[in-house]
Amino acid sequence: MKEVVDQVISAQWIAPVMPDPTEVRKNCSVVLNGGVITDILGSEEAKLKYNAKEWTDFENHMLIPGLVNAHTHASMTLMRGIGDDEPLMSWLQNTIWPIEMSLGNEDFCHDGTMLSAVEMLKSGTTTFNDMYWHPSATARACGEVGIRAVLGMIVVGFPSSYAKDYDEYIQKGQSTLAEFLDHPTVHFSYAPHAPYTVSDEILTRLGDLCKAEDRKLHIHLHETEDECNSSEALDKSPMCHRSEFAGRPIQNLERLGLLNKNLVAAHAVHVKDEEIALLAEREVSTVHCPTSNLKLASGFCPVAKLLEAGVNVAIGTDGSASNNALDMVAEMKTAAILAKAVAKDTTAVPAATALKMATYNGAKALGLGDKIGSLQVGKSGDMIAVELGARAANTPVFDPISSFVYSSHGADVSDAWVNGQRVMRERRVTTMDEKDILEKAHSWVDKINALNLDPHPNHHPKET
Amino acid sequence: MKEVVDQVISAQWIAPVMPDPTEVRKNCSVVLNGGVITDILGSEEAKLKYNAKEWTDFENHMLIPGLVNAHTHASMTLMRGIGDDEPLMSWLQNTIWPIEMSLGNEDFCHDGTMLSAVEMLKSGTTTFNDMYWHPSATARACGEVGIRAVLGMIVVGFPSSYAKDYDEYIQKGQSTLAEFLDHPTVHFSYAPHAPYTVSDEILTRLGDLCKAEDRKLHIHLHETEDECNSSEALDKSPMCHRSEFAGRPIQNLERLGLLNKNLVAAHAVHVKDEEIALLAEREVSTVHCPTSNLKLASGFCPVAKLLEAGVNVAIGTDGSASNNALDMVAEMKTAAILAKAVAKDTTAVPAATALKMATYNGAKALGLGDKIGSLQVGKSGDMIAVELGARAANTPVFDPISSFVYSSHGADVSDAWVNGQRVMRERRVTTMDEKDILEKAHSWVDKINALNLDPHPNHHPKET
Repeated sequence: MKEVVDQVISAQWIAPVMPDPTEVRKNCSVVLNGGVITDILGSEEAKLKYNAKEWTDFENHMLIPGLVNAHTHASMTLMRGIGDDEPLMSWLQNTIWPIEMSLGNEDFCHDGTMLSAVEMLKSGTTTFNDMYWHPSATARACGEVGIRAVLGMIVVGFPSSYAKDYDEYIQKGQSTLAEFLDHPTVHFSYAPHAPYTVSDEILTRLGDLCKAEDRKLHIHLHETEDECNSSEALDKSPMCHRSEFAGRPIQNLERLGLLNKNLVAAHAVHVKDEEIALLAEREVSTVHCPTSNLKLASGFCPVAKLLEAGVNVAIGTDGSASNNALDMVAEMKTAAILAKAVAKDTTAVPAATALKMATYNGAKALGLGDKIGSLQVGKSGDMIAVELGARAANTPVFDPISSFVYSSHGADVSDAWVNGQRVMRERRVTTMDEKDILEKAHSWVDKINALNLDPHPNHHPKET
Repeated sequence: MKEVVDQVISAQWIAPVMPDPTEVRKNCSVVLNGGVITDILGSEEAKLKYNAKEWTDFENHMLIPGLVNAHTHASMTLMRGIGDDEPLMSWLQNTIWPIEMSLGNEDFCHDGTMLSAVEMLKSGTTTFNDMYWHPSATARACGEVGIRAVLGMIVVGFPSSYAKDYDEYIQKGQSTLAEFLDHPTVHFSYAPHAPYTVSDEILTRLGDLCKAEDRKLHIHLHETEDECNSSEALDKSPMCHRSEFAGRPIQNLERLGLLNKNLVAAHAVHVKDEEIALLAEREVSTVHCPTSNLKLASGFCPVAKLLEAGVNVAIGTDGSASNNALDMVAEMKTAAILAKAVAKDTTAVPAATALKMATYNGAKALGLGDKIGSLQVGKSGDMIAVELGARAANTPVFDPISSFVYSSHGADVSDAWVNGQRVMRERRVTTMDEKDILEKAHSWVDKINALNLDPHPNHHPKET
């Protein structure tokens, strides 16, 4: 008598990522029941053992855990590509901040998140870690699309269209948290923006809340040299941390007791050897954002050194206003190849390690390591199918993990499941009308253009 | 009375690249007649002026010159992804060279080029600059697919399955050249592999042939630090140039009179300030291959400095065995963002400059600057259509050039023309059966696997 289950998904290859990131099983099936992976077995055996309400046979595909975009600002997608190639401060002052002040309301954040969610699902990301204004609007959008997210309850030391002071930021975040408590796929972290925008006192308060609630603290940290040098000199410039302590921000967080396993440090580009050792010892997770670090000329993160020291390094796209894409497949490749050049070692961050960083390490950074990030019995049904060898660009296939990491792009992801729900089928999002989402995004262009900003006040983009 | 022409192609945007790389014209049409661009004008005006045998209206597209992949080894695509993440010498000795010795015949080069040509056309490359064994087979494949190419008459100072000595390399190249003389889209260069594989005497002989025939000399140059240091020390190691001159290869080529406008230097990663000035003065073209330089840990090319000095810098993917893709759209983005981080300047290599590098600079490097590389009246009909704003990933569109360079991938290219022939229509190659080409590529996997090589002799790929 065969067992009846919700779904069986059979594929040519399965890369479970954990416990062995290099393992690829052939002709294998994943069984989903009640949103959870209940079995992984050979496809022939599966046919004898199971009857499924839905049985999917993939001919040229590899099943892998859904990708985890461990640092982004989803709503910023509506500002993608405006004011590119400008110096950072000019870009913020002449473009980003005026748009946020005039238009950055709940609707903006909802529609921006919808656009990002579609882009992410269609390139294999099933979970993202966010930090932006109006997390309530982002939460609502995530619930509608069915993408998993950890939303930062953002806290910044200046007023915005979202909140006027520290207390209101924290109170608004917590009321959103209460609204979505126990939501199966919408989770929350505390998200003080950065040491240079949030005071020591508030950082400590949020750190205490994280300990009490077993929650992650998501922060930008050591992204630029300026941030480290200004804090060390305590020069009170815009990038100097808001502390009376003269030292690098990591030293200060250590002093405040905030370097611990709750900490998710986005970027961590400028880290000295002794800082790397400290991050490892304190079980901090870092999120490497290679494209953003290059495009904003922030610097070169020593990824191989961090991994070697035992730091849990995840991968993020950062916001699409400074990338300008949310494609974790491209980001994995950039992370893998850049790490080799920085380490001067072709064997640094091989394909399987890049895949693990983009899945399990991300899940672990977000506090979801026991729930998602690998294909293992008992884990949630968060998974994607990637088509290999059916398009010239990833043909032939000698090693499916290498084909995925080095030769594929986001659109090779054909199907996606979150919590057992098939949110993308044959490259179409099942939960929403994509056309409608694109039309809404285009309509924001008119509103932004009506502001009559000049994103290039001093010059046209340089010609050569 | 309307004028009858072969084709009119109307689009929402046209970026002609030259004379102004930042220019984008709206609602514009390109007129093709006899394979040549005969007019570029507003679409309303075009309707009054022309009758076309074929009139195409693109709603969400931008027309741009076809991309030029200025350095690759097309046939190597059949070895894509085998032995990844190994040290360079181990990879060559245990994987690449044994495959080339056993299987690298005419058929291999033909089928590999077919696969590469499909991949390149489908990601917007209409011209590539090649260097590999059996250029006759590559020439035949290019003719069949209708892609434009400059094929290197390869010369190496050791025997291969292709030729036994310098004389045979040169003679075989010249007989292929004679066979394809005056072919409209298949062109030739002399291609001594590198200073460390070809003697001074032969380099000089090839340089003279280039001068006499007004032809380009395509060579790997200053790709690694090892090559520069070994040549300076004259240590006779495998990376030392084959010369009695103790000095860096660029100095040696200057001494031999080979630094001139015929020279196309692939990579040029390790170049000192005085070498950059010399390359500019001698009108040498260089080809930046960012993905390959990162993946092989070769180093960081000072692209912004080269451009500022006036060097003509093109972009190449290198072979797909060391990339592992031939996607010039991805390569443009990597070139643009990496240059900013290397120069520590967010304004270095803006989107329009990256696009010019990938089109006009490539054409100029290949000696085709008066024929292709920009959309201008009198130039050949080598052009692509890129779809923008119809997919979440490149929506919204504030600046079409930025959308293309930073937010698009190869599959956003929907149509391609070479010499006026529409070689891709709505994402399908019109000249060949793509399925047939993929099947042939897959069949080479069996032959390669039958060699029973061990691409990872010392270890499995590193896990973390």
